[in-house]
Amino acid sequence: MNKENSLGIVNLQYAEFAQTADALELESGQKLGPITIAYETYGQLNPEKSNAVLILHAFSGDAHAAGYYEGEEKPGWWDDMIGPGKAFDTNKYFVICSNVIGGCRGSTGPASINPITNKLYALTFPIITVVDMVKAQKKLIESLGIKKLLNVCGGSMGGMQALQWVALYPEMVASAIPIATTLKHSPQQIAFDEVGRQAVMADPNWRQGNYYEYTQPERGLAVARMIGHITYMSDESMETKFSRRLKDEAYSFSFASDFEVEGYLRYRGDSFVKRFDANSYLYITRAMDYFDLSDGKLFLEPEKVKTKFLVIAFTSDWLYPLYQSKKIVRALKHNHIDVASCEIKSTYGHDAFLLEVKEQSRLISHFLKGVYQNGK
Amino acid sequence: MNKENSLGIVNLQYAEFAQTADALELESGQKLGPITIAYETYGQLNPEKSNAVLILHAFSGDAHAAGYYEGEEKPGWWDDMIGPGKAFDTNKYFVICSNVIGGCRGSTGPASINPITNKLYALTFPIITVVDMVKAQKKLIESLGIKKLLNVCGGSMGGMQALQWVALYPEMVASAIPIATTLKHSPQQIAFDEVGRQAVMADPNWRQGNYYEYTQPERGLAVARMIGHITYMSDESMETKFSRRLKDEAYSFSFASDFEVEGYLRYRGDSFVKRFDANSYLYITRAMDYFDLSDGKLFLEPEKVKTKFLVIAFTSDWLYPLYQSKKIVRALKHNHIDVASCEIKSTYGHDAFLLEVKEQSRLISHFLKGVYQNGK
Repeated sequence: MNKENSLGIVNLQYAEFAQTADALELESGQKLGPITIAYETYGQLNPEKSNAVLILHAFSGDAHAAGYYEGEEKPGWWDDMIGPGKAFDTNKYFVICSNVIGGCRGSTGPASINPITNKLYALTFPIITVVDMVKAQKKLIESLGIKKLLNVCGGSMGGMQALQWVALYPEMVASAIPIATTLKHSPQQIAFDEVGRQAVMADPNWRQGNYYEYTQPERGLAVARMIGHITYMSDESMETKFSRRLKDEAYSFSFASDFEVEGYLRYRGDSFVKRFDANSYLYITRAMDYFDLSDGKLFLEPEKVKTKFLVIAFTSDWLYPLYQSKKIVRALKHNHIDVASCEIKSTYGHDAFLLEVKEQSRLISHFLKGVYQNGK
Repeated sequence: MNKENSLGIVNLQYAEFAQTADALELESGQKLGPITIAYETYGQLNPEKSNAVLILHAFSGDAHAAGYYEGEEKPGWWDDMIGPGKAFDTNKYFVICSNVIGGCRGSTGPASINPITNKLYALTFPIITVVDMVKAQKKLIESLGIKKLLNVCGGSMGGMQALQWVALYPEMVASAIPIATTLKHSPQQIAFDEVGRQAVMADPNWRQGNYYEYTQPERGLAVARMIGHITYMSDESMETKFSRRLKDEAYSFSFASDFEVEGYLRYRGDSFVKRFDANSYLYITRAMDYFDLSDGKLFLEPEKVKTKFLVIAFTSDWLYPLYQSKKIVRALKHNHIDVASCEIKSTYGHDAFLLEVKEQSRLISHFLKGVYQNGK
């Protein structure tokens, strides 16, 4: 464990919303409750409660954004960005990250027990949307006594949540940093998600979602994840990382994984199924596909929005291409909202939001400092 | 049937190479024989046998490039380009198209009976490469009494075969038109193929390739094809064709195919499994992944190559991007080989080689005319 500038050991916490009045009214019209939200916090909430930052995770992320769990070697997924002296400086800010509802990493999702029936939800779990994710997060934030967030920030699906936060509760968000994201999923993005879902559902071990007593639909979920990984990288980053290098000296003239890139994808697929629930895969991709804040749906009353924005995108990201971030910036400017934007040169593709630490840190720490000082 | 400028009814023919001496010595070191090659011809071979054009099909194509089968409504896959007065003008040229070995549309492949054992090959079929495909085609061409081809032309995997033809038999090819293709599969291209293979092999109905007495691994093969279709289109062409249009009026809040793009992909996946053999999917994608004519491997003796080239690529093709065609052109120029090239502006993505008829026709008919007249 490299604890330099690290938060050290952190713990997953749980917030329970068990009252009938706490039930979430979902976008579908259904209700969801009781709800558990798994979350972590780093740093200290100041007495004015004005230094809270909400980090929003991407599709397969979780509440463990930074620091280390006891006995583990691998830190949280954005540890490079969150900690003492880092972009989200825990000496200054109180940082919160929670697992989305529908997820499988502590928050209520399809693999949870429905406390009313005492059975696992599986596909009886209602379809949730990004709106519903944000409404659940609002409950958590309010339970922590926070009335206004200094910042909401996330990449990919995390960026959708950041946009949705401001769309729903502009008065609760001083600033927002949507990264490598979009106002809506394009048909190509929906198509990639749909193929992943079909891969899961094609696996007979999926059993219409009722696999919990048996085994995960591992092969189908692994295939879905492999597709995902191709879209997270770029043609160039794959060339740099793998080129056409073989695992052995020559072609095997078989269907073995001769090429390093094949071995890598199989490995990533196989390790994903150990940590991620197949039904969550279906629910969360569906939430992303339903997400749509385009065509004026971003703000009902833009004149009331005082939230400051920093929009970040990456040149080689072809899953959430530059033009989608440009559309976010255009929509914000059209509504006379204060927005800074940056296209970071990177070869890492969509993964860049996890890997381009230096440039993002410079932009974000500067932006946050400005917002924090102005708010004082 | 719109028979205007059409070849009318055409027939699939078969060439048999049953002699021991005819067996193919494969790149793997194995032998394959006897071999059947399914092919079609259009137009008339002239007395000098100098007007023969070999059309090479893409991954899921077949020998039925043009005209109509008796009783069918749909013409061959490149009917817009081949026929009287068309780019490959059958009033002038004798056009041949054959199904690749390893395929499932008449030529010897994994779904064929091994005439030696009288059993279906399935996975006992040897791994074949683009080199092997071309060597088999050479047998066909020679059996037709043709010593030199006026032209070899194909898109995608067809383009690889065109390049491979000149690499192996430059003296037999007066001109070549590789379209939307590459000197080698990149790791991203290998990755997409590998995910498709994994989708097929993950289907328990695949049974290690021994499914012929039972049923195709339909779900797995459909998923593989869905991935393929995303890569054949472009972000822009999907936006134009589908945008976020729903099949019904509102979200179903379920995993039904709400979006038109989802319905389209499912339909394309389902119809593919009716016409394509899952094992052929594995063998042919493997052949493409093994293809590599980069780094000077294109020509052993470039000074002997008199073949004229026309290289065509499409701006929105992200599966076989422009830079790959540029590398072909650079390799040819480096070897002082006569090459013209064109980047056609198109929003259709990789599918453009099937759809951009007008521009391709203009380029190809002009190029062919020049080669034909010079050869006289």
